[in-house]
Amino acid sequence: MSTEQVTTKAAAPRERILATTRTLFYGHGIQATGVGELAEVAGVSKRTLYQLFESKDALVAAYLALMSQHGTAGERNLDRAELSARDRLLALFERPRLSARFRGCPMHNAAVELADPDHPGRTVIVAHKHALLARLAEIGREAGARNPEVLARQLITLYEGATALATSLDEVEPFDFARSAAETLIDAMIDQTGQTAPSS
Amino acid sequence: MSTEQVTTKAAAPRERILATTRTLFYGHGIQATGVGELAEVAGVSKRTLYQLFESKDALVAAYLALMSQHGTAGERNLDRAELSARDRLLALFERPRLSARFRGCPMHNAAVELADPDHPGRTVIVAHKHALLARLAEIGREAGARNPEVLARQLITLYEGATALATSLDEVEPFDFARSAAETLIDAMIDQTGQTAPSS
Repeated sequence: MSTEQVTTKAAAPRERILATTRTLFYGHGIQATGVGELAEVAGVSKRTLYQLFESKDALVAAYLALMSQHGTAGERNLDRAELSARDRLLALFERPRLSARFRGCPMHNAAVELADPDHPGRTVIVAHKHALLARLAEIGREAGARNPEVLARQLITLYEGATALATSLDEVEPFDFARSAAETLIDAMIDQTGQTAPSS
Repeated sequence: MSTEQVTTKAAAPRERILATTRTLFYGHGIQATGVGELAEVAGVSKRTLYQLFESKDALVAAYLALMSQHGTAGERNLDRAELSARDRLLALFERPRLSARFRGCPMHNAAVELADPDHPGRTVIVAHKHALLARLAEIGREAGARNPEVLARQLITLYEGATALATSLDEVEPFDFARSAAETLIDAMIDQTGQTAPSS
């Protein structure tokens, strides 16, 4: 059930620790994962871990920065240069290919778990969502949307909804509901000028 | 910062414990809250707590059943008999009135925290979302939607997105984005027959 992403012992301790956060913080949860367990799975001592990351909070922030840089599969689809702007927006809603249970957006999941508004991970989460919003507005503009900022806000809400509902229901069908809704919202924002509408 | 919902000492231990789960499980998180802390805040012994709830998992399931029965403010708006069916669907997206930080949907948050697919709380979460889906389809049918099941799936995804994104961003504006998207989706599903369109 767990996604084993632990790298080889040859990797540097920092990389081994961060690879292990992806397995445990993402797969099992941030609060459910103790630093001792994480160090053990990464094959480093707690002392080494605390030399590299001054606290669990700092490690969580580093994990989130890594996940933000990586992005979700849907977010990476926004860069697919072979697609039209409209199709890139729709590709955000492609069903994730799963090697294990779907566990949602790592940024959002951390927001749920980190109830403290001053946790250092919070700024990473908010910056990630704002960057996605800006990217969607940019592509919406390219697609000819009348109000790309509004369209971007609608689409990011749908995308957050697809990932969250897929987590709640433990099934990926919500990505299909979101995609059909996204098509309607995009078409309502773009004057139809003979663009090819993908079948859905 | 914490929402104090602890009832008086006169309340029965079971009620005191469940009221405390609403404060701690919802406000601080399920994994972040120990049973010892919960018993202390509720003013009962751990022994009493375990006589009433056989395990933390059972207590979490009871907390979720209570939250499911209560519903969110948006979900309760679906029962507002003074509104038309269309306006009830839109009232789902009313901004929550906050007495503390917005902490999202208790069902979804638990799905994020309970990584174990066999946790007894999981069935409560899935049943809650399915009941909401059925209710939305029923109201969509009443509103004259051509395909109420599809509309219900689109609207539940938007609603989950509004609550999740509001949690991620720590602001309630996503409910406005979701409402504007919901209007477009509802109108695309209902033949316009002179219905009054609310301004947004």
